[in-house]
Amino acid sequence: MNADILALRIGLLGLGTVGGGVAEFIQLRSSRLTHLFGCQLQLARVLVREPRKQRSIDLPPELLTTDPGAVLDDPSVAIIVEAMGGEQPALDYMRRALRNGKHLVTANKEVLAKHGPELLALAAQHNVDVYYEASVGGGLPLIGPFKRDLLANQISSVRAIINGTTNYILTRMAEAQVDFAAALREAQALGYAEPDPHNDVSGLDAVYKLAILATLAFHSEVRPDQIYCEGITKLTARDFRFAAEMGYQIKLLAIGHDRAEGIEVRVHPSLVPKAQLLAGVNGVYNAVELDGDLVGRVLLYGRGAGSLPTASAIAGDVIDLARNIRKGISNRTEVTLGPTRRVLPMEDVSTRYYLRLHVADRPGVLADIAAVLGRLQISIAAFIQQEVDAARRSAEIVIVTHRAHEAAIRSALDEFAGLTSVLEVAALLRIEDGS
Amino acid sequence: MNADILALRIGLLGLGTVGGGVAEFIQLRSSRLTHLFGCQLQLARVLVREPRKQRSIDLPPELLTTDPGAVLDDPSVAIIVEAMGGEQPALDYMRRALRNGKHLVTANKEVLAKHGPELLALAAQHNVDVYYEASVGGGLPLIGPFKRDLLANQISSVRAIINGTTNYILTRMAEAQVDFAAALREAQALGYAEPDPHNDVSGLDAVYKLAILATLAFHSEVRPDQIYCEGITKLTARDFRFAAEMGYQIKLLAIGHDRAEGIEVRVHPSLVPKAQLLAGVNGVYNAVELDGDLVGRVLLYGRGAGSLPTASAIAGDVIDLARNIRKGISNRTEVTLGPTRRVLPMEDVSTRYYLRLHVADRPGVLADIAAVLGRLQISIAAFIQQEVDAARRSAEIVIVTHRAHEAAIRSALDEFAGLTSVLEVAALLRIEDGS
Repeated sequence: MNADILALRIGLLGLGTVGGGVAEFIQLRSSRLTHLFGCQLQLARVLVREPRKQRSIDLPPELLTTDPGAVLDDPSVAIIVEAMGGEQPALDYMRRALRNGKHLVTANKEVLAKHGPELLALAAQHNVDVYYEASVGGGLPLIGPFKRDLLANQISSVRAIINGTTNYILTRMAEAQVDFAAALREAQALGYAEPDPHNDVSGLDAVYKLAILATLAFHSEVRPDQIYCEGITKLTARDFRFAAEMGYQIKLLAIGHDRAEGIEVRVHPSLVPKAQLLAGVNGVYNAVELDGDLVGRVLLYGRGAGSLPTASAIAGDVIDLARNIRKGISNRTEVTLGPTRRVLPMEDVSTRYYLRLHVADRPGVLADIAAVLGRLQISIAAFIQQEVDAARRSAEIVIVTHRAHEAAIRSALDEFAGLTSVLEVAALLRIEDGS
Repeated sequence: MNADILALRIGLLGLGTVGGGVAEFIQLRSSRLTHLFGCQLQLARVLVREPRKQRSIDLPPELLTTDPGAVLDDPSVAIIVEAMGGEQPALDYMRRALRNGKHLVTANKEVLAKHGPELLALAAQHNVDVYYEASVGGGLPLIGPFKRDLLANQISSVRAIINGTTNYILTRMAEAQVDFAAALREAQALGYAEPDPHNDVSGLDAVYKLAILATLAFHSEVRPDQIYCEGITKLTARDFRFAAEMGYQIKLLAIGHDRAEGIEVRVHPSLVPKAQLLAGVNGVYNAVELDGDLVGRVLLYGRGAGSLPTASAIAGDVIDLARNIRKGISNRTEVTLGPTRRVLPMEDVSTRYYLRLHVADRPGVLADIAAVLGRLQISIAAFIQQEVDAARRSAEIVIVTHRAHEAAIRSALDEFAGLTSVLEVAALLRIEDGS
């Protein structure tokens, strides 16, 4: 081997969708990388649960092991790529790798969101690096731009579609006017949703990713348990119809704002004006939009998941690490967290709202509702009254508000519960118009 | 000063729009950067043409100099930021800075496009770095993602809106149904177009940027003189109307494809299907869409020009350089060009075409045209015949073709010139549908 070529031995944890993509990439692309960057990636050992399982990728059987120590404690391994997912045992393995002086590249959003600052501190202590581009947005460059290219900016807000499963489901609900359950079954049949879709449709996956992005954007630790979260399971074809009529798409947005009073972070279905680029992000694609004081508005768009896009991000991290290793340095991009800032409770957030109500079909009902909203300083921007259901003697109304406080909206819902004229609050959604 | 804080003295060339933004950034943001990254940026000297000129930024007069040597040869200066623009004398100053062992950060697309490989080689020889994120796409992270995050990918194509002036003009032509001249006057009045708009509206500015992007994407030097170029000056309100009727927007695209036979690079007005995100990139915004074999399709969107967005990119580069300087390394991200590949002549390109013809209003005309196209293997995908101009005894037809060779289309135009039934080829545009 040419003396200028750096051999880098990689220990891989997990050989599922993500790990399989990484192994495939190293096998197929190693010679191109050697040619372009003078570094040769070698797969040293792969930790798996079932060594004899049939896999789409064909690896020499002696590479596979069920013993974590055979990977984590191998002194020839310079970089551990963690592709197992889940909090444990991944977290313990990652700690052990760092303590053993190995660099870490991970796609694990849950561990990064919950324990990122701890792992980064542990890495600094052992003079190694943690790279995690693959943890948010698949192959879409996000962590890199935040940590490098956009770093001079004060970021005032982030709005992101960062879960491909829910974006696929919402795209189908908008296109085909089907309800949530039908769109979910379709996504499952296509492999875009897991058999147990809870983490995606509840919004939890987006919460982990927002915790990572908001921490980077606002230079202050944001934990998943500080993020308000609503999933997409209650959305109905009816709300998609009204939203479309009023010029909106419905998207599950992960939103972060840097406010004078603190950081605002929330994940929930949002009405997005159709003229905005985010409204045109369809199917399994992800997009992150941010506002920086110097750069203005930036949007980054791409495939947020999948084997090869995630391998692309991991490979980019490994190449960047290889450059450090060649130069004999580490911990080049220090973590740049400022003092921890307050995260606003949801009650203190203000935004615009979409309310769908079933009301009694009789005189005075609108006056009742308008009186409640007026007392709470909630001002009405648009109003639709739908056809009356004669049999039930009820009518359906949709109200769009100007900017109002979440606390005021919650009080309004409480007061509606006490009105005999309001039969049901069928939907409460938030509007994100980018202002 | 804290011993851990690295003081970095910067020599700035030029104090116009871009240079003024950089100076403003260093003045306003230096303490935040010191706090977050432990490096203190200091403006050492600024090269200007007229030291006594009134400027929006207020700098101590002793910082300004008209002597290039006072900046380029100052041994205390570690980084030269070049913000003059134009080929000369900028190129000579940049060479001198590198020979003096100074790192270089530049926004100069013309010099990078024409002399990039020479400057990068000179930098390697003197063990310093050249950063040029600001040369393409303003503050939008582009060079960084190409050089790092997406590096594991084989990029098969790039499609970009990379000139804000022309995109503003085309957006106005589409929205207000005005002709080119009126939209240009409006852009000039708003400061979005220069008094002499030639470099923008001719497509030359986009050619420089495409040369830089294509070289990075395809790992092979692409020179500006190898890029086919057509500007936007001949576009008419009529073509915008037909394009809209058929579901397209007209955008000035910079296009690069990696074909088996060679690299295809061209800048020209293009019809883009409205459903594509690129069609929704309006006003002075830029966007670059690329296809990578691992990552799939990625789109990066933001403000492509302006004082502060460009300062954002330059500042990102300076911070990255500062990290290298702290670690005592340089030339960390080596240039990774492969062997120089062939650039295809435009005649060998194949794409879809939009043709608008004025023809004689008499029997047999369509048969004549269809016979020419059929003989040249050009197949018709759509056809519109507009109302007849009775006075001139002429009719207007629009033909949209399937994929055809540029050589065949040029032959067709030659043959039309010999037909008495074809009075005029009023427009020939290319369609870029992302396939």
